[in-house]
Amino acid sequence: MLKVGVLGGTGYAGIETVRLLSKHSGVEITRIVSQSFAGQKISDVYQNLRGICDLTCCALDVEDIAENCDLVFTALPHGASKEVIPSLYEKGLKIIDLSGDFRYNDEKVYEKWYGAPHSSPELLKESVYGLCELHRDEIKTHRLIGNPGCYTTCSILALAPLVANRLIDNKSIIIDAKSGVTGAGRGLALPSMFCECTESMKAYKVATHRHTSEIEQELSCLAGEEIMLSFTPHLAPMKRGILATSYASLQAEKSTEELVEIYKKFYQKEKFVRVYEAGTLPEVKHITGSNYVGIGLVVDPRLRRVVVVSCIDNLVKGAAGQAVQNMNLICGFPEDTGLTDAGFYL
Amino acid sequence: MLKVGVLGGTGYAGIETVRLLSKHSGVEITRIVSQSFAGQKISDVYQNLRGICDLTCCALDVEDIAENCDLVFTALPHGASKEVIPSLYEKGLKIIDLSGDFRYNDEKVYEKWYGAPHSSPELLKESVYGLCELHRDEIKTHRLIGNPGCYTTCSILALAPLVANRLIDNKSIIIDAKSGVTGAGRGLALPSMFCECTESMKAYKVATHRHTSEIEQELSCLAGEEIMLSFTPHLAPMKRGILATSYASLQAEKSTEELVEIYKKFYQKEKFVRVYEAGTLPEVKHITGSNYVGIGLVVDPRLRRVVVVSCIDNLVKGAAGQAVQNMNLICGFPEDTGLTDAGFYL
Amino acid sequence: MLKVGVLGGTGYAGIETVRLLSKHSGVEITRIVSQSFAGQKISDVYQNLRGICDLTCCALDVEDIAENCDLVFTALPHGASKEVIPSLYEKGLKIIDLSGDFRYNDEKVYEKWYGAPHSSPELLKESVYGLCELHRDEIKTHRLIGNPGCYTTCSILALAPLVANRLIDNKSIIIDAKSGVTGAGRGLALPSMFCECTESMKAYKVATHRHTSEIEQELSCLAGEEIMLSFTPHLAPMKRGILATSYASLQAEKSTEELVEIYKKFYQKEKFVRVYEAGTLPEVKHITGSNYVGIGLVVDPRLRRVVVVSCIDNLVKGAAGQAVQNMNLICGFPEDTGLTDAGFYL
Amino acid sequence: MLKVGVLGGTGYAGIETVRLLSKHSGVEITRIVSQSFAGQKISDVYQNLRGICDLTCCALDVEDIAENCDLVFTALPHGASKEVIPSLYEKGLKIIDLSGDFRYNDEKVYEKWYGAPHSSPELLKESVYGLCELHRDEIKTHRLIGNPGCYTTCSILALAPLVANRLIDNKSIIIDAKSGVTGAGRGLALPSMFCECTESMKAYKVATHRHTSEIEQELSCLAGEEIMLSFTPHLAPMKRGILATSYASLQAEKSTEELVEIYKKFYQKEKFVRVYEAGTLPEVKHITGSNYVGIGLVVDPRLRRVVVVSCIDNLVKGAAGQAVQNMNLICGFPEDTGLTDAGFYL
Repeated sequence: MLKVGVLGGTGYAGIETVRLLSKHSGVEITRIVSQSFAGQKISDVYQNLRGICDLTCCALDVEDIAENCDLVFTALPHGASKEVIPSLYEKGLKIIDLSGDFRYNDEKVYEKWYGAPHSSPELLKESVYGLCELHRDEIKTHRLIGNPGCYTTCSILALAPLVANRLIDNKSIIIDAKSGVTGAGRGLALPSMFCECTESMKAYKVATHRHTSEIEQELSCLAGEEIMLSFTPHLAPMKRGILATSYASLQAEKSTEELVEIYKKFYQKEKFVRVYEAGTLPEVKHITGSNYVGIGLVVDPRLRRVVVVSCIDNLVKGAAGQAVQNMNLICGFPEDTGLTDAGFYL
Repeated sequence: MLKVGVLGGTGYAGIETVRLLSKHSGVEITRIVSQSFAGQKISDVYQNLRGICDLTCCALDVEDIAENCDLVFTALPHGASKEVIPSLYEKGLKIIDLSGDFRYNDEKVYEKWYGAPHSSPELLKESVYGLCELHRDEIKTHRLIGNPGCYTTCSILALAPLVANRLIDNKSIIIDAKSGVTGAGRGLALPSMFCECTESMKAYKVATHRHTSEIEQELSCLAGEEIMLSFTPHLAPMKRGILATSYASLQAEKSTEELVEIYKKFYQKEKFVRVYEAGTLPEVKHITGSNYVGIGLVVDPRLRRVVVVSCIDNLVKGAAGQAVQNMNLICGFPEDTGLTDAGFYL
Repeated sequence: MLKVGVLGGTGYAGIETVRLLSKHSGVEITRIVSQSFAGQKISDVYQNLRGICDLTCCALDVEDIAENCDLVFTALPHGASKEVIPSLYEKGLKIIDLSGDFRYNDEKVYEKWYGAPHSSPELLKESVYGLCELHRDEIKTHRLIGNPGCYTTCSILALAPLVANRLIDNKSIIIDAKSGVTGAGRGLALPSMFCECTESMKAYKVATHRHTSEIEQELSCLAGEEIMLSFTPHLAPMKRGILATSYASLQAEKSTEELVEIYKKFYQKEKFVRVYEAGTLPEVKHITGSNYVGIGLVVDPRLRRVVVVSCIDNLVKGAAGQAVQNMNLICGFPEDTGLTDAGFYL
Repeated sequence: MLKVGVLGGTGYAGIETVRLLSKHSGVEITRIVSQSFAGQKISDVYQNLRGICDLTCCALDVEDIAENCDLVFTALPHGASKEVIPSLYEKGLKIIDLSGDFRYNDEKVYEKWYGAPHSSPELLKESVYGLCELHRDEIKTHRLIGNPGCYTTCSILALAPLVANRLIDNKSIIIDAKSGVTGAGRGLALPSMFCECTESMKAYKVATHRHTSEIEQELSCLAGEEIMLSFTPHLAPMKRGILATSYASLQAEKSTEELVEIYKKFYQKEKFVRVYEAGTLPEVKHITGSNYVGIGLVVDPRLRRVVVVSCIDNLVKGAAGQAVQNMNLICGFPEDTGLTDAGFYL
């Protein structure tokens, strides 16, 4: 059994990691680190885990972690993870970091979007961007994974086949994304209160959201040229789920059916990517609770523009599920271990 | 007191019209027509109206309507209204039609998007498009008003200042709109069931929604050239409200602040349009339950693109409220009579 | 115009008071006091009020309030109000207090349920319990009103006809109440976060909720003997609204129809109380957004027990609406001024 | 591998059965019967199942079922199941019926509450009530199981320890239950529409809900005397979950702690029953998506009354999960096979 720890285990991404790991046949959770709930049983903080995972949360102790874990998931606040990760890495642990700290090829991009220099630029070079469908082989040979952001996973997978096949004007990309409220985390904040969210929607961080830079990095790689694009996040009154609607101008006339075929071919070996037939589109409820990605598209022949609709569960494929998928890759488990559940739908 | 009738008064747009009229100081509701609930008191169908409007619904009888109403709101299913409206018009009534039948300048556009020839092309010429902020003077002199669609009101008002001032590339317009479920009406349908909607989102009628044609018509008028654009409607898990996020490429560099000033000037006399200061954006809860429109914007200088966020209550400014505003205009009431309530927020 | 102030105007009860007052023809809001938002326009804190109420919030200044207000609503946290109210009362202001501080006939009851002695027992004697339907005449002659709690209004009105008419075993009363989340206020708290509330329900403060004591006080008065009862509050995933289901054993056999008649007679002069016909029951959506109370009942002849279902909007009849109704009573406005709106339903 | 069929597989209880079976290591789903969707792939009707269960739904054919299934779950509308079950039983199949048809010991009780004579009284005698925690041994030796109703499972388990230990006045029992909307099924109905449910609550079928009779039957068995009780169902704006609040008068003084101990002892061998410590109570989100039952309680010493709060997921422990648990029992699988998932919480 692989011994794993979850650092930041009582936040929403952390607890979803615990929930998924509790179904994984090859791992044992040995440590859950939580500053706020140290000394309490995780199943007292999240009572859905009673009898399933009753570990007591502990404060952070690098030595203790190193002794008792082969691999850690770090779901710490941005900034906190960069303090801890170098010491854990030095001790030989495998690390899957759910923060934004190790998602970049270029520390300057990090600095630009995070507003501060990267604290471990040398470690950044050791890390790989953990979008499994695009970087599977690289991931397998690394032990520090920058687990992608939720919006970015949903957006990159939606556009990758178009960019990689040079089908669109790369200057025309617009991504309009809608997220559930778990995306804002468990920290107390007025905008996350029930009465402020329910029966409402809003756009936020228009033209400035950090995930923009991740999407641009990955699509630029695929394109072989620098891509800049519009990304607008929105908050929707639901717990889980992201729906991204992406727009781009086609370089040449293509039908919906032709593009669907191209997508199917691009993702033919990908268990977790579901390409929808022409005439159908994914909805959030198709994937909630699961690691699946739904992608559908429509060509608007009047405008020679393609509209791609993609959905993921922000906590699963957008965070904890992809983290487990990365663990499976770097530890030699079958890639879908612990991740085969259907979405809830209801 | 103006005697008014509401035809189709038990659908969601109809009942919201009744609710608003019940607060209007200058009108008396004399008839509520409902095929499904004829013979029942409206306050038994919608018990929020008990003691406020206890009229008994009646089946449609054109003679009876003509005798007892000066003005009618027709909130009938598409198609049904076109049967009734010619006879009522002939009898001299003022008519505010909430269907799509009288929203077009050109019957061919109607035919193209509705898939059937218009049944009263001569009457279409007598009608005017009831977007009060753009056609106020014309509205005042007509007695058949095609009350605009919900998505269209939200979208047109968001883009009008840009188009009218020739600030954008008219080929670059993309509107990504999110609506509450009342937009789907009260008719029984699986996708409108609670368990199919809540905690989910979806895009629908991508590149084919009829409201596209209304938006194009109005923006083309303002531009003096034909505009075609992308419009994508989405269903969000809330009752009321539309949030539209519109994208366009700027012809020249402009700052957010400059554009906000242009918007403020464009709408300076408009009571129901709230232009948001740079750095703030409207949210659905700001306008739910009210006739107000919130508009804010952000310029993305990296891409020289503007992102406009606009919100309305689909049942009020997007249907019943604008219908009452139109009534006020054509009947000589102060334009905001019965429409001054703040949104609910909570 | 009556000059009124709202102290604690940015909490949920406070802002609902502002919203309702903005529709009241006889008052002018001259002061909104908010410690947290002093210096900001109320319409920047709650943007639904833009153009409707743009007053700047101010810090508390008793002299200033006394000079500029004839009447104040105090929607301050429990405890805070008791500091302020004596000084305002001394200066001759009319005061409607939305806290629990002035709801008791007996300071010992306050002390027992609030865990501390009452700070102004002499002022408590000057105050009257502001449940308009039961204490109308007394209210009119007082100028310090203890505005009732939300659960209590819904529960007392549901049971008053039974108790006053000696129809039930007073030892058998059980009230099971379900509230929307605005009842928890705007203060940041984990249990009020969207992701912790939505798609869930819970009971809380079982057998210990303070509103129990208010209900017991009022029903005991009506009964002429001491009543103790079970009261269980629950949190439901909605913003507004309370539904209370009350149970009691009948002293003698009565049919549903007979009891409905007794209720109708009891409330025959009450504009805001809607007694439902046998076979129908109130639902939260019938009253949301309005000052109305819906009451229906079913007799279970198998058990000779009556089940009463009652609904109010906790922010309106349960707080701000009743406060305005009290203002109308003590200031000589028609009792329903500013309160005649239908509920939203949608 | 056990070959199983799901009859009525596209309703909400049916599809949840399919979802749970898809995780069960010992079964193969060979048939999904759906009148409405015959000929369509189940994963086109519920797209969360794509790649997980892609069986084509078929119309009902008893011969075909008998040949291809060892066991069937019948999640058919009340009435429909009683047509089919006798023929399937005759052919030797194991049957777990999710309708109300085989839940009664006494056909007269069925007749009284369902308003029609039972169509297979002789088969009723062959069946056993499938509440696993109470009838485990009997279940193992039968092959026709009347799977309990959702409200009943939640209510009976909440009260069983009190009744079995003769701790309460059996005449004093009141159960106030709140259910999510999946409980109303997938059939099109106005009250199940999103805009009619969200932000509202209602009581329904007060004193007449059929589940009352199941609860009374089971508690009477435990008591050894006939029990009649009040049961009030409510609809809450959530998809899944039931929270039942039960009230009863204690025969003697007991503390909360003492009763908790009694509950723990009563359920000490029950994996799926979680008794909460004094001072804590279950919430719907603790059990949503899982087969667990949460039970907590509070004694109100003022009234010598106990309040028990219990929660289940109506689709899992209240329907499909318990059905799978029953299958495990009668087929010799470990009782928790396929049922060990933690609830979603988020």
